[in-house]
Amino acid sequence: MAADKVYRASTTAPVNIAVVKYWGKRDASLNLPTNSSLSVTLSQADLRTLTTASCSASFPASVGDSLLLNGEPSDISGARVQACFRELRTRRAALEAQDSSLPPLSTYPLRLVSENNFPTAAGLASSAAGFAALVRAIANLYELPASPSELSLIARQGSGSACRSLFGGYVAWRMGSRADGTDSMADQVAEASHWPEMRALILVVSASKKGVSSTSGMQQTVATSGLFQERISTVVPRNMATMEKAIQDRDFASFAEVTMRDSNSFHATCADTYPPIFYMNDVSRAAIRAVEAINAEAGRTVAAYTFDAGPNAVIYYLEADAEAVVGTFYHVLGGAVDGWKDDKIKGLKPTMSLDGGLVSILQAGVSRVILTGVGEGPVKTEECLVAEDGSVAKR
Amino acid sequence: MAADKVYRASTTAPVNIAVVKYWGKRDASLNLPTNSSLSVTLSQADLRTLTTASCSASFPASVGDSLLLNGEPSDISGARVQACFRELRTRRAALEAQDSSLPPLSTYPLRLVSENNFPTAAGLASSAAGFAALVRAIANLYELPASPSELSLIARQGSGSACRSLFGGYVAWRMGSRADGTDSMADQVAEASHWPEMRALILVVSASKKGVSSTSGMQQTVATSGLFQERISTVVPRNMATMEKAIQDRDFASFAEVTMRDSNSFHATCADTYPPIFYMNDVSRAAIRAVEAINAEAGRTVAAYTFDAGPNAVIYYLEADAEAVVGTFYHVLGGAVDGWKDDKIKGLKPTMSLDGGLVSILQAGVSRVILTGVGEGPVKTEECLVAEDGSVAKR
Repeated sequence: MAADKVYRASTTAPVNIAVVKYWGKRDASLNLPTNSSLSVTLSQADLRTLTTASCSASFPASVGDSLLLNGEPSDISGARVQACFRELRTRRAALEAQDSSLPPLSTYPLRLVSENNFPTAAGLASSAAGFAALVRAIANLYELPASPSELSLIARQGSGSACRSLFGGYVAWRMGSRADGTDSMADQVAEASHWPEMRALILVVSASKKGVSSTSGMQQTVATSGLFQERISTVVPRNMATMEKAIQDRDFASFAEVTMRDSNSFHATCADTYPPIFYMNDVSRAAIRAVEAINAEAGRTVAAYTFDAGPNAVIYYLEADAEAVVGTFYHVLGGAVDGWKDDKIKGLKPTMSLDGGLVSILQAGVSRVILTGVGEGPVKTEECLVAEDGSVAKR
Repeated sequence: MAADKVYRASTTAPVNIAVVKYWGKRDASLNLPTNSSLSVTLSQADLRTLTTASCSASFPASVGDSLLLNGEPSDISGARVQACFRELRTRRAALEAQDSSLPPLSTYPLRLVSENNFPTAAGLASSAAGFAALVRAIANLYELPASPSELSLIARQGSGSACRSLFGGYVAWRMGSRADGTDSMADQVAEASHWPEMRALILVVSASKKGVSSTSGMQQTVATSGLFQERISTVVPRNMATMEKAIQDRDFASFAEVTMRDSNSFHATCADTYPPIFYMNDVSRAAIRAVEAINAEAGRTVAAYTFDAGPNAVIYYLEADAEAVVGTFYHVLGGAVDGWKDDKIKGLKPTMSLDGGLVSILQAGVSRVILTGVGEGPVKTEECLVAEDGSVAKR
C-alpha cells in the first residue's frame, strides 16, 4: 500500500442527560465514581458530535497526534486524552502483533477533527459526546473488535459521563468495585425503542458567571459535605433501583419523581459543600415551579426537571403530553427565544397559564430552547472531516 | 382590694438568630425538635418585643383573654398560644392554692398588648421574641418563681425557637429525650459579657414571594428528604459540640465556619425536600460570595453568613473587624438602603471593593440593613402598654 495512504473513520456520538447523577470520584486519575448513575441518550438529530479519526505514515511525527475541535486546535496533552489514545493504541498494537498483514496504524500519528452541531454557548456538557465520539472513531479506524461496554471503559477515562454516550436509549454506568476500574463501565438498561416516546425540552439559561467546574466541584463535595456520604450510600442506590424498574415498566410518574428527587439531592450536596457550590439560579428555580404548576394543572405527573452542573433546565416528558408541557412553555417564552421547531409546536394550544412572577423570570432568563428526545448511540458515518489526502476542509 | 383593680406587668424580649439551626419536629403538638440548636441573642436596642400582660376581675369574661399585637387584635385561639396560657395559669393556680391571701389572678381574663420595635416588613422571625415576651410578661404578672429554663419549656410550646429568647448571650436549646418534652428546654452557653464583641449585620432582602412557612416546611423536610436523617444524627451533634467550644474559647474562626456550614446544611436539606424548598435567592447567594470575598481579602475569617427560613442574610463579625465587614457593605450599598447608624459607620473606610456583578445584585436586592450585636435576655420594664384603668393607649 502507498506509504502516504490516509486511513479514515468517522462516527457521530450523542449527548446524554443523567436522571441519576454522577457526582464524586473515588479515584480521580482513573475517573472512578463514588456512585452509579443512569442517563437518557438524546437524539443526535439535535445534539451530536461528529468526529473523524485519521492516521497515516505520511503525517509528520514532528507534529504527532492532533485534534481540531470546532475549527480550533485543541490541547491533547492532558492525561485524560492521552489515556484514551494509549488504551486504543495498545489494543490496536495487539491486533497487529497477531496479524502482520495489518498496517501498523498504532504507530502512525492520529489526526482527529471534531464538530458539534450545537452552540457551545448553550453550555451543554459536550465532553461526554466528545470523548465518546473520539473513542468510537479511533476504535473504528483501528477496526477494534471491542464492544461498546469495553469502549466505555476507555471513554470513562476521558470524561466519566462519556462512558454513557456509547449507548443509545437508557444507559447505566455501574460504578464497579475494582481498584483498577476494569468493572466501572456502562451498559444499556433499555433500547430507545423500548420507550421511544421520551422527549426532552431544554431551557438554556444564560449564566451570569461560569460556575465551579464539575471536576473540581465534585471533589470539593466529596471532601467537605457532611451529607454526601448519605447520598452515595443510601439515596443513589435506591434511586438507581427505582429508576431501572420505572424504565422497564415505562412508568413515567416513577421515572419523573426519581429524576426530580435525584437532581434535588445532587444540588443539595453541592449547597452543603464548603464553600457552597450553586449551579442553579432564580431562573432555574422558576423552571422547577413551572414544572410543578404544569403537573398540578394536569392532575398527574407529565413533566420532570433535572439540572446538571449549570443553570439549564432539562425537562423530560412523553410525546403524548407535549401540549401540556411544550405548549405551556411556548405560550410563555414564545418568539422571545430561538430553538422552537415549527413541526413540534404547530397546533399546540396553551393548556394553562403560569403565575405572572414565574413568567417574567423565565422570559428574562431563558435564552433559547432545544426540543429533542431519546435517541440512538454512536453511528458510523461516511461524512468525513478529513479529506482523502489527509487535509482538513477549511470552514 | 378593689374588684376592679388591674394587675399589670411588662417585659421586653429579644430576637435570636441561630448559628446551629432548628429544623424538624419529632412531636408537632409539643414542639419537640429533631435536633438541638444554638443561637446568639441580639440586642433589644435594635430588635425587641415589648409586652404588657394585665388581668383584672373587671375585665369582661364575655371577651375573655385577648392579645393586641402592633395595634391589631391577634387570634389567640390557636393551640400554641392556648398551651402557653394553660401552663402559666396552672402554675399560678398552684401558688394560689398554697396561699389563700393571693388574689386569684389565674381566674381573671388576660389582656395582653405587644409591640415590636422593628418593621414586620423586615421579615425577621418575630414569633421567637413574641412568645418569649408573652410568657415572661405573664410569669411576671403571676409572680411565678419559675426559672428562665422552666419558662423556656412553656415558650417552646408557643414557638420552638422562642425558648432561646428567654436568655441573653449564647443560648442552646437541648432537644431532650423524653416523650412529654419536659427535658426539651433552653440553657445559657455563655453570657453576652463573655464575648461582648459579637456583632451582626442583617441584610434585609426583599423576597419576591412568601416562601413555605417554617412549620410546614420543616415537616415536609422530615418526611421527604433523604439527607435529613444524616443532618440530625451526625452533622448537628458535631456542630453543636464544635460551636459550644468555639464560644467558650471565643474562637471566631471556628464559630464562623460552623455557622456557615450549618446554614448551608440546613438549606441543603430544604433543597432536598420533595418538592424542594428554596429560602435563599440570587441576592442571598451574592451575600455569601461577598462574605467569602471579604474573608479572602482579609486573609482570615472576619465574617460569617447565616440564613433562616427566608432570603435575609445575617452576617456575624467582631467589632474589631467592623471596617472590613460593615465598611465594605456600606461602601457597596451606601445611601441606597436605610438602617445604617451614623455612629457605627462614621469613619469606616472601604477596605476593599467587591466584584461588579455581586455589587449590582446586592444593590438591586437589599432593601435595608440592621446593625446590631449580641445582647441580654428579657428585661422587666415599667413601660406599660396597658393603663392603670386597664385601657389600652390609642396609638
